[in-house]
Amino acid sequence: MITVLAGGVGAARLLRGMVRAVPASDVTAIVNTADDVILHGLHVSPDLDTVTYTLAEAGNPETGWGLAGETWQAMDALERLGGKAWFRLGDRDLGTHLHRTGRLAEGAGLAAVTAEIAAAWGLELTLLPMTEDRVATMVTLARPDGARNQADGEADGQADDPANGQASQPASREVGFQEYFVRLGHSVAVESVRFDGAEDSLPGPGVLDALADADVVVIAPSNPIVSIGPLLAVPGIADALRSRRADTVAVSPIVAGAALKGPADRMLRELGHEASVVGVARLYRDLAATLVVDTADAGLADAVEAEGMACVVTDTIMSSAEVAADLSRRILEVGR
Amino acid sequence: MITVLAGGVGAARLLRGMVRAVPASDVTAIVNTADDVILHGLHVSPDLDTVTYTLAEAGNPETGWGLAGETWQAMDALERLGGKAWFRLGDRDLGTHLHRTGRLAEGAGLAAVTAEIAAAWGLELTLLPMTEDRVATMVTLARPDGARNQADGEADGQADDPANGQASQPASREVGFQEYFVRLGHSVAVESVRFDGAEDSLPGPGVLDALADADVVVIAPSNPIVSIGPLLAVPGIADALRSRRADTVAVSPIVAGAALKGPADRMLRELGHEASVVGVARLYRDLAATLVVDTADAGLADAVEAEGMACVVTDTIMSSAEVAADLSRRILEVGR
Repeated sequence: MITVLAGGVGAARLLRGMVRAVPASDVTAIVNTADDVILHGLHVSPDLDTVTYTLAEAGNPETGWGLAGETWQAMDALERLGGKAWFRLGDRDLGTHLHRTGRLAEGAGLAAVTAEIAAAWGLELTLLPMTEDRVATMVTLARPDGARNQADGEADGQADDPANGQASQPASREVGFQEYFVRLGHSVAVESVRFDGAEDSLPGPGVLDALADADVVVIAPSNPIVSIGPLLAVPGIADALRSRRADTVAVSPIVAGAALKGPADRMLRELGHEASVVGVARLYRDLAATLVVDTADAGLADAVEAEGMACVVTDTIMSSAEVAADLSRRILEVGR
Repeated sequence: MITVLAGGVGAARLLRGMVRAVPASDVTAIVNTADDVILHGLHVSPDLDTVTYTLAEAGNPETGWGLAGETWQAMDALERLGGKAWFRLGDRDLGTHLHRTGRLAEGAGLAAVTAEIAAAWGLELTLLPMTEDRVATMVTLARPDGARNQADGEADGQADDPANGQASQPASREVGFQEYFVRLGHSVAVESVRFDGAEDSLPGPGVLDALADADVVVIAPSNPIVSIGPLLAVPGIADALRSRRADTVAVSPIVAGAALKGPADRMLRELGHEASVVGVARLYRDLAATLVVDTADAGLADAVEAEGMACVVTDTIMSSAEVAADLSRRILEVGR
């Protein structure tokens, strides 16, 4: 049994390899739900859907999110009405959100609904939401200077208008994760991140068992701050993981100092971490015995080991399902 | 100024003529919202949308609901997931529901959102929801016999299984309006109708003024029970209408003993009314001085007048916008 701590795109690609390396029914993914958002009344679970669609081979390979062959009639209509369409919900994708929202309103839990959706797509691995409680990643944007203030597209220029008389410093601004990630295109500096509701949340059904029972636990190459961070903020998950440290393998989402996708590198730097495999090792060394790094970072293997983790060097850039399967087999070799 | 009490399809057709007979900006429609339903988390307002789409010349002329040129990707996806898709929400139509739901969640009132949507479609008439409070038409289905029990598609046949030992009579069953109208295709007999929440509701913004200020008030040829009935159940509207009786013209939705569309004729009979223009006159005589009936019912004009209403005989079957405009002009002649 393999249990993978998962965010969105990076985790989905790894899982696509893992189900080629071992029977899919042996694989459980514990998926971040702190990116979940209510949009226009619909419960959207971006990471769960990215994993589901990718594993179903129905994902859009170009965007890394959404469905291939999608249409956009609903969003076009919404925009014609003046609605907020910065979070693009495709017509087929809407079917998922309609179903999830309807089932939740009927009283079903997110874990059950997630299992239903995965089964309808023919998936044989187990997808577990990290929690069924509301946990929301909130991002405090760094105090904007003029340039940033333009970048965030807001018309609150008055606050840093030097002619304004008041010597006001514009306050930091906290926004929901999707506003940071999608609306602002993660183009603004981050001052801090917190997981609203996490301290009162419970691990989702099956989550602690999946960690306790796994032969190997894998931390997917997802953003350590905003994809893996929320899982660790749910009381009980970090402790369960620590107790499996010897059997836990993390895959670095940072390759040669950069994130393959998304803002993980900048975010690490902005929050005072090092955007390198060594910085990743410092974040994970209490949780995982081994860090897998890309061949591009072979020269940093000693530095990783100096942080107290075994370092495995291999190809981690999952340009195809075959590369992902090879990476998965390597992870399982070192984890066992 | 013309104020029209409106349900869905019949009212939409009349309004399409009315805005040809007088400047659209002189027309206000007070629209039934007791058919509104939360589906998969989305606030759907079928009558408001039918009126809006029809007036925008964007409606589907074959169904009388929804948009022309609609696609069904979201519903197809929902069905593949095993979701409840009996209420068909087209992809373009979903844009409306997403926008409405999002704006309501932001704290906007239904009247403001309705005005925004109408303006986005370029409409110049005023559409007012009858109330901004939740009022829900609830339909008690007549105690099912075997045939009806099959017709309603439920697997509770045990209740009227004569071999069941228990001499149980299956209880009457109350369902929401859309379950009766759409899911059951209004193919089951109705025992009673009530408007849940009506007694605690307030008329929507502008509703009472629109009744007080109108030169002519029109009761559209909508279902008297479930389209006009909810408006009259909102405290204040029936009284306001009664005070305008002399200037109020009702158009019979019953032609030659039958409804042109929908179950109004059967519903009238099932609830103890006469499914004829005379039955309609009995329902409206306290509210309207005049009843417009179709030429097919010319022979019943005296019987209508015997109920205390003036009876105007003309073509009421609105097979085109021109017929609807002629009907509208006739209504305004007699109303003034």
